[in-house]
Amino acid sequence: MRATMINGTRDVSVEELPRPELEAPTDAIIKVVAACVCGSDLWPYRGVVPVKEPRQMGHEYVGIIEELGSEVTGLEVGQFVVGSFITSDNTCEICRAGYQSKCVHAGGVGTAQAQYARITNAAGTLVATPEYPAEDLIPSLLAASDVLGTGWFGAVEAHAGPGKTIAVVGDGAVGLLAILSAKQLGAERIIAFSRHPERQALAREFGATDIIEERGDEGVAKLKELTGGLGAHGVVEAVGTQESIEQALRSARGGGYLTILGVAHGVQISGRELFSRQVHVVAGGAPVRRFLPELIDLILERKINPGRVFTLDLPLEEAPAAYRAMDERTAIKVLLRP
Amino acid sequence: MRATMINGTRDVSVEELPRPELEAPTDAIIKVVAACVCGSDLWPYRGVVPVKEPRQMGHEYVGIIEELGSEVTGLEVGQFVVGSFITSDNTCEICRAGYQSKCVHAGGVGTAQAQYARITNAAGTLVATPEYPAEDLIPSLLAASDVLGTGWFGAVEAHAGPGKTIAVVGDGAVGLLAILSAKQLGAERIIAFSRHPERQALAREFGATDIIEERGDEGVAKLKELTGGLGAHGVVEAVGTQESIEQALRSARGGGYLTILGVAHGVQISGRELFSRQVHVVAGGAPVRRFLPELIDLILERKINPGRVFTLDLPLEEAPAAYRAMDERTAIKVLLRP
Repeated sequence: MRATMINGTRDVSVEELPRPELEAPTDAIIKVVAACVCGSDLWPYRGVVPVKEPRQMGHEYVGIIEELGSEVTGLEVGQFVVGSFITSDNTCEICRAGYQSKCVHAGGVGTAQAQYARITNAAGTLVATPEYPAEDLIPSLLAASDVLGTGWFGAVEAHAGPGKTIAVVGDGAVGLLAILSAKQLGAERIIAFSRHPERQALAREFGATDIIEERGDEGVAKLKELTGGLGAHGVVEAVGTQESIEQALRSARGGGYLTILGVAHGVQISGRELFSRQVHVVAGGAPVRRFLPELIDLILERKINPGRVFTLDLPLEEAPAAYRAMDERTAIKVLLRP
Repeated sequence: MRATMINGTRDVSVEELPRPELEAPTDAIIKVVAACVCGSDLWPYRGVVPVKEPRQMGHEYVGIIEELGSEVTGLEVGQFVVGSFITSDNTCEICRAGYQSKCVHAGGVGTAQAQYARITNAAGTLVATPEYPAEDLIPSLLAASDVLGTGWFGAVEAHAGPGKTIAVVGDGAVGLLAILSAKQLGAERIIAFSRHPERQALAREFGATDIIEERGDEGVAKLKELTGGLGAHGVVEAVGTQESIEQALRSARGGGYLTILGVAHGVQISGRELFSRQVHVVAGGAPVRRFLPELIDLILERKINPGRVFTLDLPLEEAPAAYRAMDERTAIKVLLRP
């Protein structure tokens, strides 16, 4: 099969590899219908995280079940499924509390930019659609597998809801979909930090009511102006640098909420600042599985259109160009079709 | 009037000072009935926080209203009142959300180890009891003004409740009262980290079901053993050092909760660790005012006895001995009577 490999800094290729096989009775093999390049894929691509040896890439996917391990229940060969970048049994105490991202049997996905992929913990990870979805919904379903699920988690943990002001730091796909999520969850006011006209437009389409172009303490000052000096009730941080996390923390009001959706190596949060701000902070990979059934319904009912973040749609063979477009920010997010 | 001063490292004295006067129409002057020495008073006492010039001490107090500013409503001269170490208007949007500690008009209290004290934001800060309380309840009411209110906040934010396992790091008065609070809030299992026999005994009396003597990663390993490998649902951190905060963070399960009730200067929380643990963290001074009416009721109904943390009761004139006893840990907490 054809599969995307990263070989080193800014060196991605599409290679011929053996098709994956079932390894555990809880595995599934899926035929990938669509995958994509994630903002976090840029960390090894840009050399921020070193690439020690060539490896496959990809953790966002929708596909068709090709083969099921003997212990997988609730799924059938031929079904169209949406998964997540963390696999989970969805039965342990942590999963039942809604934190499938910290499942006691959690596994990772890292080979989805390919024609086929093996998914561990299949029964607890893959969610089937009632039937093969309309072609134009596939980008949105793909978004659910990571960027939408992650943005949704951000908005939920930021306590987005009626009467609330939510701020979003970061105008990548996750930040933009946190805006969509906050809107869907009923937030009254959504303040987006963005200085990129195309992304500002999509932010507004998704529900942003205000855009702040300033960054850092200037951006915080602007946000304070917009919120009667108090700050936002909840903030979603979707960049992950020291500066952006500090900006996000300072944008929340006392007693407010901050979700940090990505953290670069070396980021340190000052204990004194955390103490003086008195903001509830949670960081981590989103428990996408918790939200998938609801998100899939919203997409199939055409109530949300998160697939709008894919501004470029390429065949898998063009993965190197997809990475370049993401790296150079000429595309918000790039879909890959095997 | 007589008042406690800190003059430098391990140098506390009781001096003659002018009685405080009303400065704003929202102030009250109280005649202090009881005050005490706080764990946080040891930071300047030990030189951890430098003492630039001599200043008064004390932020925990119960007393009788002596004088009220012209704008103070809802209180009367002669009432017995319990206050808090942060003063708040209790009407702003932040207060109404329950975070009086971050009130837009928040003020501090720092002169309560004295015969009289001026309290700002009196109407929003002081809570009167229905009548002058029984003498033996005064230590408990005094505890409500800080250490109980703080421990209670820790337990509430750690989501203590039925079916929950709560861990408490720190066996000072705040940690011990976080145990009492978790018990009162219905926690099923309360794990206390303590290696001091007298404090272990009080922890058990307050509701601890398990005691762990090990610290750091050894302590975490022990806690994991007790919790089926998962960690506690919620953790209260009542020490504030780098090591204790890391221990607390590692003691919570994925998706769990951590309240940090004090933070020493220089503490840094690793963003990567925060991300990988996926624990909800909040730090800050407790919004004691939110809890005071409920805590006062529980005390007057003799349902809780937080005054047990006062293992030494001294006249104000002996403040230097009170600080020594706290510093040397020969007392858990020392009450001072002006």
